[in-house]
This record gives sequence, structure tokens and C-alpha cells, in this order.
Amino acid sequence: MTRKLLAATLLASASIAPLFAPAQAKEGMFTPDQLQEIAGQLEEAGLEIEAEELADLTGFPMGAIVSLGGCSASFVSPTGLVVTNHHCARGSVQYNSTADNNYLENGFLANALAEELPAAPGSRIYVTTQVTDVTDRMRAGTEGMEPYERYELVQQRSKDITAECEEDAGFRCQVASFYGGAEYKLIKRLEVRDVRLVYAPADSIGKYGGDIDNWMWPRHTGDFAFYRAYVAPDGSAADYAEENVPYEPEHHLKVSAAGLEEGDFVMAAGYPGSTSRYTLMAEVENTFGWTYPTFQTLLTDWIATIEEAAPQGTDARVKYESRLAGLNNFEKNLRGQIEGARRVGLVERRREREEALAAWIAADPSRVEYGKAIAELAELSEESAQASRTNFWYNNATRPALLGVAERLYRLSKERQKEDAQRESGYQERDMGFFRQGLQALDRRFDPAVDKAEWELFLTGYLAQPVDERVAVLDEALGITADMTPADLPALLDRFYAETELDDAETRLALMEATPQQLEASDDPFIELAVALYDYGFQLETESKTRAGLALALRPAYMEAITGWQRESGVLTYPDANSTLRVTYGEVLGGSPRDGMAYYPFTTLEGITEKDTGEDPFNAPQDLLDTIEARDYGPYKLESIGSVPVNFLSDLDSTGGNSGSATLNARAELVGLLFDGTFESVNSDWDFDPRTTRTIHVDTRYMLWVMDKVDGAERLIEEMDIVR
Amino acid sequence: MTRKLLAATLLASASIAPLFAPAQAKEGMFTPDQLQEIAGQLEEAGLEIEAEELADLTGFPMGAIVSLGGCSASFVSPTGLVVTNHHCARGSVQYNSTADNNYLENGFLANALAEELPAAPGSRIYVTTQVTDVTDRMRAGTEGMEPYERYELVQQRSKDITAECEEDAGFRCQVASFYGGAEYKLIKRLEVRDVRLVYAPADSIGKYGGDIDNWMWPRHTGDFAFYRAYVAPDGSAADYAEENVPYEPEHHLKVSAAGLEEGDFVMAAGYPGSTSRYTLMAEVENTFGWTYPTFQTLLTDWIATIEEAAPQGTDARVKYESRLAGLNNFEKNLRGQIEGARRVGLVERRREREEALAAWIAADPSRVEYGKAIAELAELSEESAQASRTNFWYNNATRPALLGVAERLYRLSKERQKEDAQRESGYQERDMGFFRQGLQALDRRFDPAVDKAEWELFLTGYLAQPVDERVAVLDEALGITADMTPADLPALLDRFYAETELDDAETRLALMEATPQQLEASDDPFIELAVALYDYGFQLETESKTRAGLALALRPAYMEAITGWQRESGVLTYPDANSTLRVTYGEVLGGSPRDGMAYYPFTTLEGITEKDTGEDPFNAPQDLLDTIEARDYGPYKLESIGSVPVNFLSDLDSTGGNSGSATLNARAELVGLLFDGTFESVNSDWDFDPRTTRTIHVDTRYMLWVMDKVDGAERLIEEMDIVR
Repeated sequence: MTRKLLAATLLASASIAPLFAPAQAKEGMFTPDQLQEIAGQLEEAGLEIEAEELADLTGFPMGAIVSLGGCSASFVSPTGLVVTNHHCARGSVQYNSTADNNYLENGFLANALAEELPAAPGSRIYVTTQVTDVTDRMRAGTEGMEPYERYELVQQRSKDITAECEEDAGFRCQVASFYGGAEYKLIKRLEVRDVRLVYAPADSIGKYGGDIDNWMWPRHTGDFAFYRAYVAPDGSAADYAEENVPYEPEHHLKVSAAGLEEGDFVMAAGYPGSTSRYTLMAEVENTFGWTYPTFQTLLTDWIATIEEAAPQGTDARVKYESRLAGLNNFEKNLRGQIEGARRVGLVERRREREEALAAWIAADPSRVEYGKAIAELAELSEESAQASRTNFWYNNATRPALLGVAERLYRLSKERQKEDAQRESGYQERDMGFFRQGLQALDRRFDPAVDKAEWELFLTGYLAQPVDERVAVLDEALGITADMTPADLPALLDRFYAETELDDAETRLALMEATPQQLEASDDPFIELAVALYDYGFQLETESKTRAGLALALRPAYMEAITGWQRESGVLTYPDANSTLRVTYGEVLGGSPRDGMAYYPFTTLEGITEKDTGEDPFNAPQDLLDTIEARDYGPYKLESIGSVPVNFLSDLDSTGGNSGSATLNARAELVGLLFDGTFESVNSDWDFDPRTTRTIHVDTRYMLWVMDKVDGAERLIEEMDIVR
Repeated sequence: MTRKLLAATLLASASIAPLFAPAQAKEGMFTPDQLQEIAGQLEEAGLEIEAEELADLTGFPMGAIVSLGGCSASFVSPTGLVVTNHHCARGSVQYNSTADNNYLENGFLANALAEELPAAPGSRIYVTTQVTDVTDRMRAGTEGMEPYERYELVQQRSKDITAECEEDAGFRCQVASFYGGAEYKLIKRLEVRDVRLVYAPADSIGKYGGDIDNWMWPRHTGDFAFYRAYVAPDGSAADYAEENVPYEPEHHLKVSAAGLEEGDFVMAAGYPGSTSRYTLMAEVENTFGWTYPTFQTLLTDWIATIEEAAPQGTDARVKYESRLAGLNNFEKNLRGQIEGARRVGLVERRREREEALAAWIAADPSRVEYGKAIAELAELSEESAQASRTNFWYNNATRPALLGVAERLYRLSKERQKEDAQRESGYQERDMGFFRQGLQALDRRFDPAVDKAEWELFLTGYLAQPVDERVAVLDEALGITADMTPADLPALLDRFYAETELDDAETRLALMEATPQQLEASDDPFIELAVALYDYGFQLETESKTRAGLALALRPAYMEAITGWQRESGVLTYPDANSTLRVTYGEVLGGSPRDGMAYYPFTTLEGITEKDTGEDPFNAPQDLLDTIEARDYGPYKLESIGSVPVNFLSDLDSTGGNSGSATLNARAELVGLLFDGTFESVNSDWDFDPRTTRTIHVDTRYMLWVMDKVDGAERLIEEMDIVR
């Protein structure tokens, strides 16, 4: 395999793909400290700065890379200007919109600092300031323990280390596990809590193509927006206050308006959420043979149920619009994953990898312990797969929103009986802000009729399972008998919605202070149900923790085997994504997603005009269309394509959470923002296929062109360092 | 404009497309006799035989090109073997299929002449033997006439000439109008009535990709099948009889297994149905501004109505399966046309063409008459557009199948009172075979409940129109009052289905002999309705004929102006398609249908494996997949793509009716069968866009590979002349 894409027509198809070769092209979400180890490869690929510069988290350029929690972003000015994706900042645009000032529709631009608006509640900018290896402290003495105890000890240590770290006010800390628990790192981040919205283009630019173009190429989305980080006058993190001042980061990125071309080196720095590249066969088979197809079918029904229960144009639909978008997104993703797994022959490739690894282990008697660990891990994967199948319908049957609220409140009341440091993660004092906010926000996305229709759908699926796969305690609590049919469900469920008081935000918030006894005495039907299910849920959780505790003992050995085996082929093993800072590198590259067709690496302004129907989501502002028609490209034109590039493709290795990541050129200048992957790539979370995996970026030249020619954002252009 | 496709990214987009330039690339469905006039261009494009050879309809290669009526085909052996598209012969496969011998599912292959099966009733092979110019006889003395009389005279002359020609038994004749009535040609064809099915691959090859891939690229459809023409032992056309013998055509095509490559010259000879390249603005605006969008909406409702009235798995659904496929096909086509018209800026381009033509006319006083004729034609187009809007809902409201039967029977009874030669076309003795067959076949595609649901839908649309746009005679006959709502319809319509006897085939056939008086005395509700509507329908027909008669006087002048104007730019004007033999030429060529992506010119065997899900319509036979996996390409591999080419793209100018057309290389050897156009091309019926118009062919190398490696059709391969 070479790193360049072969002509599709010359490439072997899925079923005749070559055996898994460890020396894959471009694959890799490297931790910054790994980059020095592949300095030679980076240089060969075109990197012009030193690889070791990339390893320094507080130096340039990594000091400019930040997380928004779920999205990635970067500083682009000395006064705290942050650029990210439009879809990462859209919640803040929506939060500030009113009927009179619909910023979603019209876009928002602050013409002065004073006009910058508070971002949506809970918005954060996290600036990583320190990463410390805490492996020894986390793992010491855990070898000989029973699985459940091991799990609990590791959790407790993680909480303790986090608490110590957060004694430094204004910081948020996290212990992240790498290679399945082989390594642990403490990550310390400055938590900027005063985040303000500076500029977001209209949806008709920033969300151009909408759900239709989601995961699609060719793409023409202006997926960029600007925040600014504010801190107290003394420079410390603080809640929103008028006297706060722009944060002055130590480093910020220069923004390139120069000639990024096909084949040029690019890298992206961001916070990919999670991947499953090292899962074993059993899990892959269960996921693609059962979980995904089953869930995809359920999602299709679920979407139809909401659409019917919340007809277009109703208040209920407004509340469920975002859930519908999410479910549709998820359904499309699962479809893409299932299709991709079939196309690349995922299961077969996994089998081949495991056979090759087994052969490597068998080749040297000193590796025998790896073999044992892997065998046990395979067995554990089978067990986990079995548990996920068994629990699937129970988990769905207990999905209703107010049941979830009741379950969390009852759990909180129990956790609150412990010392804060001992409480389950998610129920500690440090979590209460988000907890409260979750209870408050529910009203905006809850409608009892829709919730009930969803519950009926889930319980219909539950009822369709063999009686002996049902959960007695749930049947009893709901009054489900063996001969019951879906037609009986409405009568069972009506009283829940008629009698509950959890649909009132004040009630929910007040119950955060309730004791277990008070809740056990409640006659709210959802609380009664939560109390009735508690022990069963706790048992499931314990079983799950026990499996996790066993995995903690086995997976490090498996990853060590993988690492050793890959090292022999000159490949550096990187850990699965875990929402920590990673760097991926590659080049600007089109591709052939399917036999008989190709993707060009760039789209152009003219492609917007071509796509535009005048109707959402293909309704670019007339100004923008007129500027295109006038061929007013300004200094943003790419000569080789004869226009301003809008979006571009690369072979970078990315996943959810990477959204908003700074895309950097060989000199670490900002050339784009990573915002999506192609439909053919969604399966890469499981198996990186160098032929089809392509990441989609918005080009900074398009961003600057829109700011300059359409939205009049000169103030921001002047604030940034533009390099040509 | 050059003849090569420019890189998409360099091309102007729709709204900034260059002004209409008469010197377009590749456009042209030329009559064979026109080819000598462009001999230089053909030679330059790569044609290796003499252009004048192509003009000889009874010579090589045109003597090998035949029509199936609606599809095109060609002789490929000295003993009457005919190759066409699978979708053109599929009716015959279906006709011969039984539950035990499902040839649709398994394919059909005759291993000897004796095993060849009769094609579906009505199947014909038409071999053009003579084309005679009859313009003078058709047009003489029509100048000064009133429009209606002109129309009637032209029709009568056409029938007379046809009748004279058909005195030669075994031949079928047709007077075809070219350039809107400027020229007329008498086309005489041998009518082979004993057509037999020789070989058709399984649907899972011949219909691979089904409706999903219809009009789509990349494509992997093995859209080929073989018929054989049989004649009486004396060589004359005859009905099916056991003693019939294979027809021996004077010419047949050699079949190429050699190296057709990207950029190679190709041409196709076939029978394109109809195009609207010379329609005026008014018609274009009405079609794309009103008719198509209105009809597309109706189609969507219509499809939903049938799907609801004839649920999946019912007998009714079986009967309506083919109509559903047709309506879906039509809806997708309209969608493509509307989208394409927007993308190329059809209305604007038409306006520019008319302005340019007007400028050419104004430049020379001798052209003043053209201007007058065009002005009148524009007015007439407005009138026709108005009439089509007015009649739209009436025409839909009178769509029910049995009303159509009643209307045709009543019309037949009236026409039968005239001499055969004077009867309306479609009601002459020569038409009675197809007429009878239509009445017989109805049972297989009629269900009263579905028909009623459709009628309700159409009448609901009719009721939604302003009361003064309704048709009084229809309201009266149906009992529709001004304040009626759709809820009242079922009560009105029930009796039609309860009381009619037209749902019985014997009754329908018997009524072919009825007199007008007998039908007027009938109490069958559909016959009563047909009688009540007759005068109104006749009036609409007369108005339509009057407009057609006026157009016959004006359109020739308009086409003469177009011809003169284009000639000045070195462009040969070709007539709109009219189901007569045409030749189009160009090259094997991929393209960029949209900004940011490209089509490769060839698909490969590996693309089938890649697409295959195992589920219809992506369920290739396991044998075929195994042969691909074994890379058993035989002598059919194209080295430049490293595999056997399956389908290929060209820039040929084609439309419906071209299906099955022989695709020929520079030496007039068969290299493929034309079977579809890309989705971006469907608008080319109105306006040939050289950037997006691409025709899809099945490659003869794939055809031969399937015959050789998968279906074991050696007998046929041996019968053909294969050139390498």
C-alpha cells in the first residue's frame, strides 16, 4: 500500500481486498507527544516546522488549540478570538435569537466588543495547560484484585486525582485512559466560563445544504463562527460579568489566505471523541450483525412516531425538531456504517488482523501471556455482546424523559448520602451545575403526547421479545402481563402523564434536595417506577462495572501486543480517540468513493450557484449569489480551480468531536476548519479504509471571502493575522 | 465552446453560462441522409468508414439497424439474431415465465433454435427498407387553407399514402413529419411478426440496480437480451408458425471484444422518440413554470394513492406494479427535468436564442416573413399553453380506465360508419389488432378499488379549481354541484363500479361491433358518461386540430429561419426526434455532472461486488460474483482500467426510444448498447447541455463476458462475428 490513493479502477474491491497490512496510509490520531517519534514521516509528508514543537502543549501552535467540550476550536487573535464550526456555535446563535432578531436566519455580527453577546448557558472554552502521566498512581496494586473492586478503585483514584487538580480554581481536570487502561494522563484545562458570540454567518451560509448535504460531498457549507473568551480583569476564569475582559492567549494561529493546493500537507489538531479501532471480532460481529441493524430499524420507526405525534407546524414539533435532526443524523450514520462495513469487509478484515496478531504471538514463546489475555478478552467481548443484546429492549423501555429524570433524582438522593469524593461520577458537587441545567432545559424539548408515543413504540418492541427475555420487575411495575398486546399499552401509560408532577421544572429542581426516603414515599408514578427499577438497574450497572474491571486487567496486555506487533512493521500504534487532544496529518486529496466516480478535492463558489434552488437548505443569500455572479473573488481565488475554494477534502483521520478543529498547513497556519467526513468514511471509526476515508474542511479563503465580500466583518479580519 | 468537456471547476455555472452559441458540441440526432453533409466533421471525430455508407438504409451498417416499436435493436448474425436491451425484451421474459420456470429470476437461454420461445403478443421487429420523400404530395395546395381543413387534409393524405404503401403485404408504413411539417417522408418497414426470445440474463444482471440506479451513474446494468426474427419459409413476414425459419438479414453487425477506450469515437443508430429542442419560450415557460411542477405534485399523490389502495403483497399490487414503476420513473424524470432546467437556465437560454434569431432575421429585409410567422407561432404557443392549463384537470378527471374504454368504443362505433380510409388514425382496420389487444390486456392491470381511489384523487384536484374553470357537462354527468367537497365523491362514484360490465373482457370485445345507437341506449354508467362527454371531447379535439393546422403553416417557416441562421454558423440543423431512424456521434467520455465531483467513463466488474448487498436490486448471481473474485476476465479485459468494463458513458445525443440502439465504433462494429442517460441529462430533451449530457451504454465486453463466463451462451457467441 502506498500513501497515495490508487486509481479506483485499479484497486481491489472489498471482497478481494489485500490482507490487513499494518503499514497503512495516513491512519492515526496521534497524541502530541507521539509526534516526535514520527518526526521523519512528518517531514517527509511536508511538515516545515519541527515535530517537537507540536509536542509542547503550551507552545506554538498547540497553545492555540482549545476544546469547547464536544467540539474543537482555536485562538486566532491575541485578544481571545476563537474560531470554530458554525454548527458548534449555533446553539448560542439560537439562544440569542428572537422573533425580531432572528440571528439564525440573518446571521450575527458584533461590530464592537461591546456588542458581543453571551453564549448559550453552559458554553465553555477549555484551554489545555498541562498533561501529566499518572499511570503509576492509577494502576499500582490493581493487578491481583477482583474485577469489580479493581474498577471501583480505579474510579476512586481518578476522582481523587481530579479533585486535587481542581483545587486550583478556574481549572477543570480529567484523568484520561489510553490504550484500554494501559496509560493514564491527567489533563488540566483552564475553564473559560465567560464565552461570547462574536460572529456567525446566516444558516443559509453556515448550514448550507442542511441535513441533505450532511456527510456528503460535494459540499458547500460555510461552517465557521467566532467566539471570544473573556476572563476577569485579573486574568482568572470567571462567570459572565460586564467588567470581564478578553482573554489573552499565549499563542494564536495565523490565518492563511494563500495558495493551499491539491496534494499539500495538512494536519488537524482537535479533540476526537471516540473510536473502536482495537475492538475484537466478537464486538464487531455483534455491533454490525445485530446492534446497528436492530437500532437502525428502531430509529426509522422512532422518527416516524415523532413525526406523527408532533405534526409539522405544531409547538410539539418545534420542541422535537432538534431530536428529530439528531435521530435522522444517527440513522444516516448507522446506515453509512453498515454499508461501509459491508463494503470494506470489516468482519473479514478484523478476522485477518486477529489471525496475523495470533501468528506474531505464536512466533515467540515470550509472548504467550498476550495470547492468554487476548483469549480472555475475546470471551469477555462475547459476554458484553450478549449483555448488550439482553439489555437492548429493557434500556429502550426505560427511555421516557421523565423516567430518566426520576432515576437521576433518586440516584442523586442516594449518592448525596456519601462523602462528595466517594460519589459516583456525575453526582459530585462539581457536576451539579450541569445536572441542574439538564433538569431546567427539559421543558424546551418535552411534550407528554410525543413522549408517550415514543414509550409505546419502545414497549411494543419490548413486548415482541420472548416472554423469558422480559424483565420481571419492569413487567410488574408497569402491570404488563404475559398475554398483553401493544393495544393494551395506552391504558397502562396514560396515568403516568396524567399524574406526574415531574413535568414542572420547579418541582424537578426542588427534588434535587430530596432524601431517598422522601422519594420512596412519593406517589408520582415516574418516581415510583424509578424506585421500583433501582435495584435491577444497579445490578446491571454492577455487572457492567465488573466486566469493565476485568477489561482493565486484560486490555493493556492486548494493546501491548498490538503495539509490539505494529512496531515490527514500522508502525506507531496510537490510542483510540478519547476526547483528548490529537493530531492527524495527511494531504489535500480527492478520491474515488465508488467504482465509476470521483471526488475532486475542492468545491467552488460557482458550485453554490449551481446547487442553489432558493429553498432551504439551498438558499444562499442573494448578496452572496450576486457576488459570485460578478466573479468578485478578491484575493481569495485559487488559480488552479479558477475560483474561490469553498470546501476541501483531505485524507486526515477524524471523527465526531473533531468538529471545529484547526486545519493547519506545513507552517501551522490555519487553512481551514474540519467539519465533517464523507458518507463513505463514517465506518472509519471501526476500521480506517485509506481508499474511502475523507475528511471535509471549510477553506479559510471561503471564510475570509464571506467575511470580506458578503458579511462585512472587516473588524475581525483586521484583528487576525492574515498571511498570503 | 470546444467539443471536449472542460474541467468542471473552470466552467461557468448555470447563471453565468455563456450566451447560446449555435456551434454546440456533439448535439444532433441526424437523419442518415444528413450525414454526408457533415462527412468532414465525422471524419475529424474519428469515423473510419465513409459517411455516405451510413446514408444507405439498405446497405451496411444501417441495414442491420431495426426498430422494435418503442425500442431500437440490431441484427448481429446472418440468421436473424437481434440484440436489444434487457428492459426492451423483459415483457417477453415475463410472458414466458411461470411459477416453476421464473425466467425473470433465473434468466432464459435457448440452447437450440427449437428452444426459442414466442415473444409477448404484439412483439414486432421492423426492418426499414425504404424512405421516400413525400413532401410535395403532402404539402401541395395547403398554403391558403383554413387551419382545421389543412390539418384534416394533411391527415387524409398521410392515411392515403400509408394505405398505398401497405398494399405490399408484410410491410408497415408511416408518413413521418420533419421540422414541424416542412418535410414528410414515407418510411416503409418489413414487419416481422414472428419474434422469438433467444436469451435474456436474469433480472439480477439485466436489471441490476433496478429503479434505484435508473438514470444514475455509476451504473452496472447488464441491459442486453436477444431476440430472433422468424419469417415464413418463403421469406415473407408471417405470424408465428412452427415451420417458420430464421430471417436472413442482408446485413448484420460484427460484435467487438476489442479495446474501446476513453476518448474513442462512438455513434449510435436508433429510433429516438421525441424531443422539444425547437419549442418556443411560451411553451417552455408553461411547461417548466406550470405543467411539470403541477404534474410532479400530482404524481407524488397518485403514487401514494395506489400504494395505499393496493397494499404490498395483494393481488391488486401485482396488477399495479408496472404502473407504479412507470409513475415513479416519470416522477423522477420530471424532477430531473425541473432541476436540469433550473441548472442550465433553460428559460433564459431560450430567451437568448430567440433574441439572437430575431436579430438575424432583422439583419436582412428578405427575412421579414420569418419574423411574422414566428410572432404568430409565439401567439399560438401561448394559446396552446393556455389550453393545456385549462384542460389539465378535465383530462385527469376523465382518466379512469373503464371510462377510457367506453370512450374508445363509442368513438370506434362512430368511426366505423365511415369508409376505412377516412377514419381517424387509430380506428382504421390496420389498427384493430392493437385495439383488440388493448381491450384484452386491461384485466391484468385493472382493479376497481384502485381505479376508484385514483379517480377520487383526480376529482379532488378538479374540485379544488375555481368553479368557473370546471366543465359543465362533466359536472352534470357526474352529479357534481358547486358546493360539493371531496367527501361527497365516494357516494358519486360507487355506482360506476357496482353497475358497469366493462370490467369483463368479453363484454368489452363484443362492444367493438356495437353501433352508436346501441351504445347510446346502454345503461352502463361508464358508457353513459362517455356518450355524455363525447361532444365536449370532440370540441376539444377540434380546437386542438385547428391549432395543429395553424402550426403546420407557421412552423416550417420558423424551422427554415433556424436552419438558415444555424447554417451561417456552420451548424447543420437536425429535426426534432420523431421515432424515425437517427444517428448521433461523439466519444467515450466521463464528465463532471456537478461542482466538486466527476464521473469516470467506465465502470468495472469490481464495482458490482462493491455495490452488491445480496438484496434486490443489488443481488448479482453468486456465480458472477465468484467469477469476479477469481479475476477470471477472459479476453474481455480493458488494460487501462484493469478489469472488464461493465457500462460506459458517452456524450451522444439520445432520448427515450433510443433504448437498445447499437453503439458502434469508428468501423461500425458493435461496442455497446445504449440504454439510459444520466439524471443530469434528462433535461436535454429541451436543451442539449454539452456539460451534463451523458448517455449510458452497456459494454459488449461485459455482455460477452457474462455470456461466456456466467451464462454459458457459447452457441450465440459462435453465431456472431466477434472481432478483437
